[in-house]
Amino acid sequence: MPPFRKTVETFTAGAKTLAQRYFVAPEVFVEEQGRIFSKQWVLVGHQSQIKKAGDYFVIEVSGESLIVIRDSKFEIRAFYNVCRHRGTQLKEDGRGHASVIQCPYHAWTYALDGRLIGAPHMDDVPGFAKADYSLHAVNLGLWEGFIFVNLVPKRDGSLSIEDWFAPLAGKFSHWNMSILRPAKRLEYDVRANWKLMFENYSECYHCPGLHPQLQKVSPYDSAENDLREGPFLGGFMKINPGNSLTMSGNACAAFVGEIENLQQVFYYSIFPNMLLSLHPEYVMVHQLWPQSPERTLIVCDWLFHPDAFGRKDFKPEDAIEFWDTTNKQDWHVCELSQQGIASRAYEPGPYSSRESIPAAWDEYYLRIMK
Amino acid sequence: MPPFRKTVETFTAGAKTLAQRYFVAPEVFVEEQGRIFSKQWVLVGHQSQIKKAGDYFVIEVSGESLIVIRDSKFEIRAFYNVCRHRGTQLKEDGRGHASVIQCPYHAWTYALDGRLIGAPHMDDVPGFAKADYSLHAVNLGLWEGFIFVNLVPKRDGSLSIEDWFAPLAGKFSHWNMSILRPAKRLEYDVRANWKLMFENYSECYHCPGLHPQLQKVSPYDSAENDLREGPFLGGFMKINPGNSLTMSGNACAAFVGEIENLQQVFYYSIFPNMLLSLHPEYVMVHQLWPQSPERTLIVCDWLFHPDAFGRKDFKPEDAIEFWDTTNKQDWHVCELSQQGIASRAYEPGPYSSRESIPAAWDEYYLRIMK
Amino acid sequence: MPPFRKTVETFTAGAKTLAQRYFVAPEVFVEEQGRIFSKQWVLVGHQSQIKKAGDYFVIEVSGESLIVIRDSKFEIRAFYNVCRHRGTQLKEDGRGHASVIQCPYHAWTYALDGRLIGAPHMDDVPGFAKADYSLHAVNLGLWEGFIFVNLVPKRDGSLSIEDWFAPLAGKFSHWNMSILRPAKRLEYDVRANWKLMFENYSECYHCPGLHPQLQKVSPYDSAENDLREGPFLGGFMKINPGNSLTMSGNACAAFVGEIENLQQVFYYSIFPNMLLSLHPEYVMVHQLWPQSPERTLIVCDWLFHPDAFGRKDFKPEDAIEFWDTTNKQDWHVCELSQQGIASRAYEPGPYSSRESIPAAWDEYYLRIMK
Repeated sequence: MPPFRKTVETFTAGAKTLAQRYFVAPEVFVEEQGRIFSKQWVLVGHQSQIKKAGDYFVIEVSGESLIVIRDSKFEIRAFYNVCRHRGTQLKEDGRGHASVIQCPYHAWTYALDGRLIGAPHMDDVPGFAKADYSLHAVNLGLWEGFIFVNLVPKRDGSLSIEDWFAPLAGKFSHWNMSILRPAKRLEYDVRANWKLMFENYSECYHCPGLHPQLQKVSPYDSAENDLREGPFLGGFMKINPGNSLTMSGNACAAFVGEIENLQQVFYYSIFPNMLLSLHPEYVMVHQLWPQSPERTLIVCDWLFHPDAFGRKDFKPEDAIEFWDTTNKQDWHVCELSQQGIASRAYEPGPYSSRESIPAAWDEYYLRIMK
Repeated sequence: MPPFRKTVETFTAGAKTLAQRYFVAPEVFVEEQGRIFSKQWVLVGHQSQIKKAGDYFVIEVSGESLIVIRDSKFEIRAFYNVCRHRGTQLKEDGRGHASVIQCPYHAWTYALDGRLIGAPHMDDVPGFAKADYSLHAVNLGLWEGFIFVNLVPKRDGSLSIEDWFAPLAGKFSHWNMSILRPAKRLEYDVRANWKLMFENYSECYHCPGLHPQLQKVSPYDSAENDLREGPFLGGFMKINPGNSLTMSGNACAAFVGEIENLQQVFYYSIFPNMLLSLHPEYVMVHQLWPQSPERTLIVCDWLFHPDAFGRKDFKPEDAIEFWDTTNKQDWHVCELSQQGIASRAYEPGPYSSRESIPAAWDEYYLRIMK
Repeated sequence: MPPFRKTVETFTAGAKTLAQRYFVAPEVFVEEQGRIFSKQWVLVGHQSQIKKAGDYFVIEVSGESLIVIRDSKFEIRAFYNVCRHRGTQLKEDGRGHASVIQCPYHAWTYALDGRLIGAPHMDDVPGFAKADYSLHAVNLGLWEGFIFVNLVPKRDGSLSIEDWFAPLAGKFSHWNMSILRPAKRLEYDVRANWKLMFENYSECYHCPGLHPQLQKVSPYDSAENDLREGPFLGGFMKINPGNSLTMSGNACAAFVGEIENLQQVFYYSIFPNMLLSLHPEYVMVHQLWPQSPERTLIVCDWLFHPDAFGRKDFKPEDAIEFWDTTNKQDWHVCELSQQGIASRAYEPGPYSSRESIPAAWDEYYLRIMK
């Protein structure tokens, strides 16, 4: 078998960055929303965000406001945030707790499972039946504790979430992701195309110049990728012995599970909107939400083991500050790329041997868009 | 004759809210501006705003800035706010007093009746005659003291304002509207389609949940409508004995006229941009100005009898605060409706028996748009 | 030979302002960017802004960010601000000094003459050669010390800057423009079409009403134009004896050269983006940068003789404040014109005998747009 580096070189030989239109054209953006964000399983959160029956949060997917809520049987459901009477948005942005879902306009009332259970003054409308006016449900699934939705209904033949994630079965069991709890969420409004952030996340060729503090604890040329094509891409990088990816360089919490090798951090991109960064003591998750060809909203969560929270050595800020700094460095250079790529002088440039994963991500993206 | 309720039910049986495109499509907005706001009589103010010769205000109608001014013969006129020389806007937004209309650029000067009376250095231009360069006038009319304009010139066969308002002749004479005087103006920038505010104004089905303070003094189910189809719609609701629609619940001023029944408040919508709310002691008037499919500017005036102003019992804030609170509750829920209606999950929903007037308003609107 | 006035009258007889579409239509704006700002020599600055090798500034021309830089052989060059690797913008807005041009993303490094001299990890990419990845250069030329660029490459047959400015050869030698130095730069964001500022600059018919302080020192009807058609237009106006165009009315610095007549100020418009105002003791230069049909960025520089800076009588603020006030008066009335011209009531109006130069400017513009 050939050594790892050779595989990579073979793959990227001749690969170039995407054409300009993929970063700036409104029609490509519309097509992406239709083919990708309205048809694929997209990450919307983690089950730990809505622990009790009636807990909910509101999220926008492909321009659609959705209510993600835990019903009275403890099942997590998603509904379009639209009253069946006059179309009013039921819940405003944010999160909360509710015993029923009641429209603020005319008090139409829905159970947590979406059934219409109250509609004043509708009894005397001929032919009206509450059963015809349940909330419109959205296809929802869980993977490793993370909540995903798919705007294609099951009945229209969308791939089940189990089939979609089958290639990753068991791969992340060490990290106990389904029981982790969030310590912090940060949001970023980035003036760059969402694909630039995927390409940025997928290589560390840029690390020596852009991330001096990361470079100190994790050598930029230590990447070893084990997922090299398809919708799930990535591998691990080395952490220097005794170090951690925190401001202090020390571990900031109890480990998330039975981690075999404390000198490794794993980075995976999960098409189309998840970046999954697995550290010995915490999991960082990015959600990417394209707003326009030139703007992306990024939501970043840090998750820890439930037992970590009560302990003396729990210092989540140490990791959060580290990555917040790194995130901002990345987003800024992505914004500069967006600016340059919009020029008439831009033409696709050559990927180096260190950029095999961005090249593979582009290749999968183009396959979906064909 | 059938009882009132039955009429209503017959009318609304099967009626549903408007299709999504009427609330979000830019091409519908353009068509509305062309067919409605550029062709119908639209409310722009009240004659009490410009009492003296030379008093003027500037207003935007269907994207056109107009000067509404009282000329030296005391007649109210409207002109496009455009100099005939190089097109410069003559008066900036707002109101004021002027003895002539002089362009700030090259000092071309117009009389209050629009005639060009000064144009420096134009005498040596061959063929130039001042008479050819009067300001472009706009068709203007008065109804009950309110000023209306119609962008269709009389010569192009627009309906006269007298013919347009003939169905309402004498109906409001008790309220002395032509002599009332404004005490206050509030403006609201609402992120919702203008039609949502008409539909909102036209029913009190939403009052129990949305307007607790209104509900205390005026029962939501007391509406009796006497105008039930066409461009003018509405009727009255009951006021609880001894109450008034004010924060304190007491009357806030001398009555506007010989009001027969102090236990009634009248609400009428005057197509396409006027909401007329007649209380025993004041008249509230809303102007609606669509800015885009998803945004409307609303101007709200409170008018009182001239004699009321000097009296000890004159407490206009008591009414203004009451309705400002109510207005904001309404605009907010209209904004939520706008959000929900934009969803792919929206479909026209069923009107209840309490929503006969919104249904009638929609029906008239659709007739005009056909 | 006919007297001057007669020539002017003949020229403008019957001339009218441009049609509405030239001021508001997005498609006209796009065509202007293509036919004019992407094909003609446009002013971007003065050589005194980048005195040393490695000095640079960033400027946007027709939507393109360019780096204008002095190379190690002291030659001034312009490059598209786009890395040849992944398209990243190399230099952010502003100005500075650099020994090489290094991309902030993956550290690709270019010499000041644009050659790629460093590209980490690219050696093992088959077929990669640095010589193929120089920065994309832009056609650049100097005239009287001012820096101009032309987005059409020389090889595509663009007119040389020498040929373009041949009609003005020697005309401005008295003013020593190539050795002047900037004392101040002001920027203005104007809500008006760029052509309105050219038309405004080209006549003083508006001066009595709009510029009372200018009117005091320079009679509005004293213009004598010597360039009356084509891309370069203008002439001089008189300055009252003993006066200067400053707040105090006194000269504010040593003269820029051997000025023959101190009672003259020269105003020239240089198509398509330069206004050149020559005073005995300073030169004021406006750059006009159209941003949309209805918005223009204006950059205004005041240049003085190098020897003036050290002297006791050097009071540049006296001139800057004078013209800043005048500029703002002009931009404001241009904004009012933009508003009025957008009305359906606008129609081209008649130019007076005092507006021969605006008429000539329009005529040249229309010739280029045909």
